Amino acid sequence: MLRRLDSAGADFEAQLRELTAGDDDDTAAVAEQVAQILRAVRERGDAALLEYTATFDGYAVTDAAALELPPARLHDALARLAATTRDALETAAQRLRDYHMHQRAESWSFHDADGSELGQRVTPIERVGVYVPGGKAAYPSSVLMNVIPARVAGVDEIVMVVPAPGGTLSEAVLAAACIGGVDRVFTIGGAQAVGALAWGTATVPRVDKIVGPGNRYVAAAKRQVFGRVGIDMIAGPSEVLVIADGSAPAEWLAMDLFSQAEHDEMARALLLCPDPAYLDRIESVMRDVLPSLGRGDIVRAALQGRGALIQVRDLTQATEISNRLAPEHLELAVADADALLPLIRHAGAIFVGAYTPEAVGDYCAGPNHVLPTGGTARFSSPLGVYDFQKRSSLIRCSAAGAQRLGEIAGVLADAEGLDAHARSARLRLDPAECP
Amino acid sequence: MLRRLDSAGADFEAQLRELTAGDDDDTAAVAEQVAQILRAVRERGDAALLEYTATFDGYAVTDAAALELPPARLHDALARLAATTRDALETAAQRLRDYHMHQRAESWSFHDADGSELGQRVTPIERVGVYVPGGKAAYPSSVLMNVIPARVAGVDEIVMVVPAPGGTLSEAVLAAACIGGVDRVFTIGGAQAVGALAWGTATVPRVDKIVGPGNRYVAAAKRQVFGRVGIDMIAGPSEVLVIADGSAPAEWLAMDLFSQAEHDEMARALLLCPDPAYLDRIESVMRDVLPSLGRGDIVRAALQGRGALIQVRDLTQATEISNRLAPEHLELAVADADALLPLIRHAGAIFVGAYTPEAVGDYCAGPNHVLPTGGTARFSSPLGVYDFQKRSSLIRCSAAGAQRLGEIAGVLADAEGLDAHARSARLRLDPAECP
Repeated sequence: MLRRLDSAGADFEAQLRELTAGDDDDTAAVAEQVAQILRAVRERGDAALLEYTATFDGYAVTDAAALELPPARLHDALARLAATTRDALETAAQRLRDYHMHQRAESWSFHDADGSELGQRVTPIERVGVYVPGGKAAYPSSVLMNVIPARVAGVDEIVMVVPAPGGTLSEAVLAAACIGGVDRVFTIGGAQAVGALAWGTATVPRVDKIVGPGNRYVAAAKRQVFGRVGIDMIAGPSEVLVIADGSAPAEWLAMDLFSQAEHDEMARALLLCPDPAYLDRIESVMRDVLPSLGRGDIVRAALQGRGALIQVRDLTQATEISNRLAPEHLELAVADADALLPLIRHAGAIFVGAYTPEAVGDYCAGPNHVLPTGGTARFSSPLGVYDFQKRSSLIRCSAAGAQRLGEIAGVLADAEGLDAHARSARLRLDPAECP
Repeated sequence: MLRRLDSAGADFEAQLRELTAGDDDDTAAVAEQVAQILRAVRERGDAALLEYTATFDGYAVTDAAALELPPARLHDALARLAATTRDALETAAQRLRDYHMHQRAESWSFHDADGSELGQRVTPIERVGVYVPGGKAAYPSSVLMNVIPARVAGVDEIVMVVPAPGGTLSEAVLAAACIGGVDRVFTIGGAQAVGALAWGTATVPRVDKIVGPGNRYVAAAKRQVFGRVGIDMIAGPSEVLVIADGSAPAEWLAMDLFSQAEHDEMARALLLCPDPAYLDRIESVMRDVLPSLGRGDIVRAALQGRGALIQVRDLTQATEISNRLAPEHLELAVADADALLPLIRHAGAIFVGAYTPEAVGDYCAGPNHVLPTGGTARFSSPLGVYDFQKRSSLIRCSAAGAQRLGEIAGVLADAEGLDAHARSARLRLDPAECP
């Protein structure tokens, strides 16, 4: 079902590259189509939005105002939700809030020896758009994960877009929007929704930043509007890397690999262990359990394509391989996780100890499940409050500071041939000129 | 020389839009050429890099190894620098370090009621590429501004690229690289340098993030490699917005507008004031001083195209206009700046009081001069240490935590139809299964 690799094998490097390649697909055709859609929405606003929504989502309305859901619709969805699901969603939301409160950055400043004040003001982004996929991949947990950090950051207005294919909406998604505190919801999707949020239409307000997962059209659209508005990372297929020493029940880790693989056929699931007998047990458990899985076909496809059990020399080598891949999810299913933690340099989220399956992080532990994929954990971070705050530098020169800094700036501006810079800085040197 | 607008005028909104438009240019041809260059560098590595460097920079070397400068070359440049310039650069560097130290984020974690640990590990990016323009726009200050936050963040290796048109390098730039602590320097530029940093060649190491300003080819290349590596914001033309109440000497603010306008013909300089007589004085001073400027032709072109003196109703309206434009640089040249500061929502850097010209921020006050342009301060921040750190979520469930969270995750996974997620979470519920 999934391949078995050995880090001591001659072709291991090539195998590993093959296993982790393929995210770099060429999407020129998608990009061109998306560019057309964005241009149309930018130029023709609501009219284009209505046309694309009818064409792509099979959802035809004549008045753009009908694309917005009334707030009562969200409250109704929440009221109708099964009590256990509602309780679980509300508990998850509260845990997310508690965790994300720790991420809030505060403004700061200090005074230098001349009495000049230097600092940074931290303020929330004003208006944020959250993209929520429709249809099969409509996940209420994803709504909470995108909305709550924005709310904690103090964003004024959160605008959610969610396509309604054939007019159908997920009640759980609307309930989650209500719990998370979304301000407005529009039933639009695809590149046209991204365009509407980026430029605004008569009906859809222009936002400052767009976050949330989507298909390749949404991803291409986000990439193209990047710079005009802010965007979060463009997510690739989901992935888990498990480092095991054999101390955890094989059933647990086998199910963790399954839980990753059931996302979609492109999901990647790797388990690294120095003990070949333990790898045998994992493999045997997986074979036994697979037929009982609800999404067995997806799991099988994902594991065949991008799953592997990898025998490593030792746990240190496992951390080296992990650092190279910079996995989205990293499970340290070992007895002494504290010995490994300092060796981990790059990962989206680290699940420490066998009691911590990825699934609790996906739903309710508190940290965000929007994580950097495909090795981007080398340079980027989980979605967080910091993605919804921005900073302004603050400089307030004292008279003494203006004199000292004016002279230094003058010298450097001279060196760069910027005459007016030098003169602007030096004009402040004369205390007789005090305003 | 520059237009005079009145916020009470019937066509003010249209005028303001015109003044701030035009950054959205269509660059399909550039993008296509850049895509070709990136593909060639990715596929043919050093060979392509050498060809493009010969063609575009007129700098022909036969061995790619010759593209790297020996460390002694940087030390020599620093040793030969005029003492006043060197002192000024070193003082600026130290002030930058002091300021940016305040931006370092630390890892954190807390324990919930069940004894589970939740937190975030903050770690530096491993290897960073800094793009430095060659030729006329070779600014040593820009080297310090890009390198020092990376160094403060703890980045392992900083790789600088700087084109050497016709073989010529700026000695001041190399000296700044030495002061800033750059690890390796390659004399390459353009999209080909960005490609080399993004994919690596036999000679140039692959980096995790690319920062630094460049021409439109460099900007397009950064946009295209975004996602494979991290990038900083793509900078547009520089801009200043000055809010004045008439209390500052007109000569000071006139020179501040000039200092912005001398950057290039696309630079934008606006001054807002409720007092028409003060606007008259500014205009008169500008007319008198302009002939004496070293870069008068650039200044005149910039001010004619994108300069304006704007009469506003009052200072509050000035802050409203400023928030709409979200300027890169905002000067509050007013007697009571503290009354205005709380009204400012979006700006790259705020220069408080007439003693604080933009020029000191450009060089040596301490904050970074790499700032969000063209309204992007609505959602992004000055370059900072946070751009060179990334975060990994940390979750460590206790046995009790695994039970509580496992049940919640199970309910939510059931609701989302993710069977293996639910089972993975619930497997941890049985304490008899303890590893």
